[in-house]
Amino acid sequence: MSSTIKLGNLSLSVFGESHGPAIGAVIDHLPAGEELNFDKILEFMARRAPKKDGTSTMRSEADTPEIISGFFDGKTTGEALCAVIKNNDQHSKDYSSISEFARPGHADYTGYVKYKGANDLRGGGHFSGRLTAPLVFAGAVCSQILEKRGIETGAHIYSIGKEKDASFDPVNLNAEQLNSVKKRYLPVIDGTADERMRNVIKSVRENQDSVGGIIECGAVGIECGIGEPIFDGLENRIAQLVFGIPAVKGIEFGAGFAAASLFGSENNDEFYMDGNTVKTRTNNAGGILGGISNGMPLIFRAAIKPTPSVSRPQNTVNFIKKENAVIEVKGRHDPCIVPRAVPCIEAALNIAIMSFLC
Amino acid sequence: MSSTIKLGNLSLSVFGESHGPAIGAVIDHLPAGEELNFDKILEFMARRAPKKDGTSTMRSEADTPEIISGFFDGKTTGEALCAVIKNNDQHSKDYSSISEFARPGHADYTGYVKYKGANDLRGGGHFSGRLTAPLVFAGAVCSQILEKRGIETGAHIYSIGKEKDASFDPVNLNAEQLNSVKKRYLPVIDGTADERMRNVIKSVRENQDSVGGIIECGAVGIECGIGEPIFDGLENRIAQLVFGIPAVKGIEFGAGFAAASLFGSENNDEFYMDGNTVKTRTNNAGGILGGISNGMPLIFRAAIKPTPSVSRPQNTVNFIKKENAVIEVKGRHDPCIVPRAVPCIEAALNIAIMSFLC
Amino acid sequence: MSSTIKLGNLSLSVFGESHGPAIGAVIDHLPAGEELNFDKILEFMARRAPKKDGTSTMRSEADTPEIISGFFDGKTTGEALCAVIKNNDQHSKDYSSISEFARPGHADYTGYVKYKGANDLRGGGHFSGRLTAPLVFAGAVCSQILEKRGIETGAHIYSIGKEKDASFDPVNLNAEQLNSVKKRYLPVIDGTADERMRNVIKSVRENQDSVGGIIECGAVGIECGIGEPIFDGLENRIAQLVFGIPAVKGIEFGAGFAAASLFGSENNDEFYMDGNTVKTRTNNAGGILGGISNGMPLIFRAAIKPTPSVSRPQNTVNFIKKENAVIEVKGRHDPCIVPRAVPCIEAALNIAIMSFLC
Amino acid sequence: MSSTIKLGNLSLSVFGESHGPAIGAVIDHLPAGEELNFDKILEFMARRAPKKDGTSTMRSEADTPEIISGFFDGKTTGEALCAVIKNNDQHSKDYSSISEFARPGHADYTGYVKYKGANDLRGGGHFSGRLTAPLVFAGAVCSQILEKRGIETGAHIYSIGKEKDASFDPVNLNAEQLNSVKKRYLPVIDGTADERMRNVIKSVRENQDSVGGIIECGAVGIECGIGEPIFDGLENRIAQLVFGIPAVKGIEFGAGFAAASLFGSENNDEFYMDGNTVKTRTNNAGGILGGISNGMPLIFRAAIKPTPSVSRPQNTVNFIKKENAVIEVKGRHDPCIVPRAVPCIEAALNIAIMSFLC
Repeated sequence: MSSTIKLGNLSLSVFGESHGPAIGAVIDHLPAGEELNFDKILEFMARRAPKKDGTSTMRSEADTPEIISGFFDGKTTGEALCAVIKNNDQHSKDYSSISEFARPGHADYTGYVKYKGANDLRGGGHFSGRLTAPLVFAGAVCSQILEKRGIETGAHIYSIGKEKDASFDPVNLNAEQLNSVKKRYLPVIDGTADERMRNVIKSVRENQDSVGGIIECGAVGIECGIGEPIFDGLENRIAQLVFGIPAVKGIEFGAGFAAASLFGSENNDEFYMDGNTVKTRTNNAGGILGGISNGMPLIFRAAIKPTPSVSRPQNTVNFIKKENAVIEVKGRHDPCIVPRAVPCIEAALNIAIMSFLC
Repeated sequence: MSSTIKLGNLSLSVFGESHGPAIGAVIDHLPAGEELNFDKILEFMARRAPKKDGTSTMRSEADTPEIISGFFDGKTTGEALCAVIKNNDQHSKDYSSISEFARPGHADYTGYVKYKGANDLRGGGHFSGRLTAPLVFAGAVCSQILEKRGIETGAHIYSIGKEKDASFDPVNLNAEQLNSVKKRYLPVIDGTADERMRNVIKSVRENQDSVGGIIECGAVGIECGIGEPIFDGLENRIAQLVFGIPAVKGIEFGAGFAAASLFGSENNDEFYMDGNTVKTRTNNAGGILGGISNGMPLIFRAAIKPTPSVSRPQNTVNFIKKENAVIEVKGRHDPCIVPRAVPCIEAALNIAIMSFLC
Repeated sequence: MSSTIKLGNLSLSVFGESHGPAIGAVIDHLPAGEELNFDKILEFMARRAPKKDGTSTMRSEADTPEIISGFFDGKTTGEALCAVIKNNDQHSKDYSSISEFARPGHADYTGYVKYKGANDLRGGGHFSGRLTAPLVFAGAVCSQILEKRGIETGAHIYSIGKEKDASFDPVNLNAEQLNSVKKRYLPVIDGTADERMRNVIKSVRENQDSVGGIIECGAVGIECGIGEPIFDGLENRIAQLVFGIPAVKGIEFGAGFAAASLFGSENNDEFYMDGNTVKTRTNNAGGILGGISNGMPLIFRAAIKPTPSVSRPQNTVNFIKKENAVIEVKGRHDPCIVPRAVPCIEAALNIAIMSFLC
Repeated sequence: MSSTIKLGNLSLSVFGESHGPAIGAVIDHLPAGEELNFDKILEFMARRAPKKDGTSTMRSEADTPEIISGFFDGKTTGEALCAVIKNNDQHSKDYSSISEFARPGHADYTGYVKYKGANDLRGGGHFSGRLTAPLVFAGAVCSQILEKRGIETGAHIYSIGKEKDASFDPVNLNAEQLNSVKKRYLPVIDGTADERMRNVIKSVRENQDSVGGIIECGAVGIECGIGEPIFDGLENRIAQLVFGIPAVKGIEFGAGFAAASLFGSENNDEFYMDGNTVKTRTNNAGGILGGISNGMPLIFRAAIKPTPSVSRPQNTVNFIKKENAVIEVKGRHDPCIVPRAVPCIEAALNIAIMSFLC
């Protein structure tokens, strides 16, 4: 496993398994003397918590991180900040039958081969979506530090299945729009998207199925000049973190894949002076040129595959006995992980930006 | 700049500017005693060279790398392998007028701000697509080592503008298909795509415009169990490298963004036993589960934006005088960089896979 | 702070402050499926615990690490292994008066400047020797894995003040000698050294003073060929870790500084065949040639400065008011940290060796 | 091999073999816009060149680095700076007989085992002292940048064999003393040491033998607050680099090993106010407390073993045939490498300090 990532001077270690005693994170090389509001951290993390309305898992996760180092007198100390989140509600029995059957779409089989059968398979172990809780914690910490430097980030559900939200305005995006999204039941821009998406989720749940979606993420207030190309540009670091979130299968910046079918004359963002500030009229670049921020809003989208845990019977193999089998995945699962993945993607962005500023 | 990347034990440094005396790469921690066929390296690199038919820049790049370390008696020594590629054909005058004008879509302005005006702007400097030559060299070296371990990789033009090629068969992809693509004039699967795409390129060139495209890349022969999640899984490392290639604005693995609108029951790849081997009937995962290879073909696609250098006049700014301006980008440019980007993407994949095996 | 170290694929994060709620470590990329005996870990850590006889601090540290991840069913899972050690006995009042006075020889002042006054100064905060407990934990874990690969390590007090122990036999050192040292009250080879050293310690304690010493560390069973020169050779990695232990001011391998006054004909270790094995007749190289193990015992020594906390009044400054001052360092302090540093140095060696094997 | 080192954001790759076509270095993440005086670089490198007086190898090394990237218009560009140094004078025949005989004290045997016989053994290959030329180049570049930030470094021969020089004054060391040393024939403080040491070298050469020594290195002008403990403090990074120089077997900071036999009351450096500046009356800490600079001169010493190449016959083994043998090492060798190692150690210090400032 490489659950430790070094991005310039910043490093982040994420540890824990779904059904072990606790999970957590160590963030090293944060600036010293930064005030952190613990309630705001909890608020950020609450956006990742499962809803009680049937759109997500019934597992109750009252995740309260305990900060055990690097934080003193209400401020970061500049030393490694560690937070531990206890796993209170471990129904490991629900998962007991699955240990030799490869759940399709899960890492049971690949993890078994890699770790020679020694990894903790219960609940997905270290591969569990639960491991995004410490990532979100780290992102919540970074967001507060970024905010003091005038940087705001946010994310919304761009689509679930075939239902779409509106898009962030890549040119005029501002802190207000980023924050207003966070207050809705589902984080969407278009008020009608909320109900349409909830219907999709309800429907797949009834069908013992699941569904994927796309998340769009934005940041404003990043000065021109941030990014360390060739291999540590904004895109590289954001992608390296975002692909650490289970179920992400794609990422695109600005116009992204759509740029591939444009002409240069369409895709190029013309520059102009807005007073003394260099701006672009369009923002197909997503705020990044040559791996470096250009001062415009940073925009990217991540594709989330449908939750692989579906209740209906699936063909698979028993990878220990090496024979074909049929599996019915029991347990409490999200029919759609997308709403809960929104703060995860946003957290990854916060950590990536922070890595250039410390 | 971070032009040095450490992926596990492997490290790669890429150096040089478009119009400096030379460019090159240092690859460190390759296995010792690996035979390298220099002609095959040149052959790989030739796939990146510009065509002489008007589909790409007229700049002549007879790129012959000189290996100056880490290679002795026809074999890698296990020590840092450095190759230098001379810049023979430097028409820096073509670019002399552009240094204070931000070419739309280029890193002139962001690079200027980041490097306080000290970077070598001629021809894009270190941001130039020319810097992919050492990357391709490194990928060509890795490909020969991978081949001896039974791993073959390849890539084709998935689309240019709105013209599409066929797709790799994600389940039955094999070395033969990967290699047959390399022999065509344009690297495509569908014989008709070649002419269709060349027509698109010809047309944009005539319109003083440019066009983007998508590249699909595949690998076969990777055993189950390769990858270091959470942050050094196959997707993380491939993405970190691929976003080091100029003009890449998106990456997706397996079904990628399309998976976002699928149901779990559609997207999950059911496992089955093929003799004693665990396989999947479909391959929406692109051969990767939980960041770890599952033994199926590895498949991903990268979105390439249209070349930002278009000859027609564009609105922009003079970023030194801070005033609006109009620019006409002269010089020799590719109306479509996609064909030349194919071996670059493939090289990035080779380096990423190699990093897990040394 | 960089309390996270990446050595090849292995990474180690150490977190916590002397008077915070807890300290701990995350070790990432250990091999999967390794049995760990928890009692043996406690035994290793007990060697770092303060003695109750007046030779060390009276602070009671019943350090029981709680492993909260990466360990399941008695075995490592291959995932990030995190252990947390609670700080039970925090007499932070003892330290309350010192926060604006720079204790000579301590990092109060340098830490204050670096962290702009935001770091937790109580008890040395993150600079405290207490932070070696998680390091020792990590070393204890690694030692059990190394043992299964036939590698044994050990350390003894080479000197305290002017009192010397015998030396490890650099040619014939074996596991038995390494282990027998661990069983003594003070870890020494020469039985008479124990009492002589205890007398030195007693005497400095009575004089409200402290004393330093030298620790010698050895390893046997390392095959020829381990080490990644130029910058990741055995010496580089061991030194990088050992200088992470407070109070270490020097390190030397094999004959070390003494080699500087030898002739080549004296210092060179002649090779000979012992059956089918290449050995050397002497071992001035300390088992390392060109950063790579040569199959002979690995030997190094680390210099430990006297504990800077001495009870007698010392001249210093109030670094906030910027004026001269006199300080009397109260609290419970070790008059000689050397005995407790022995397992720390040994732990650093274990981690360094482990980093080449995973 | 790990000939690439990442220290925070700075990275350095050293490549080449003694008898290959060229050697060189890539330095990445230097600040942009720094003027470099090429003559001063050559002057720095000349201090490493062999003397023509019989005190060092007769091999002629007119090492002129060619900077091929990262440098434009007299200034650093902020991009990876690569310099290549051609190997003009390759008498590889001198070494032809030695490839299966382990030269005592050399890495022939350990390198052979590690690289399975594939490494270039001629002249020590990548293990050759010649590889310090690119390190010195990198140090020379850093020294010019540091100088503009008010930081000056220097080094002198502290001892050769049993002959000693005076020591740097650890409290009052200044730029003048550091620089005056560089102008002498041998870099010493005490004028009489020069002749005494040359006599020692002459004598060992006549005896077909060699001799080691100690180098002392100092830096002034480093502000308080530089260093990233626990694992990236000043000592850790300096040691990691210095042990990359062949023949270094020990390093000590400030009082170093001598501190081990001092009492705390002797070793502690008392603080006092010098006007508005915090200083210490003594400097046993070598300017470093808790891994962080305290504003006093930084002082350390490195132990250099005698050159292992001695001309007299030595017992050894043929490691391919696995039999005992006698070797007479021919070729041109330094009877004492210490004078030439002085700028190498100084270069390592420059690179280490630079790594905290970029």
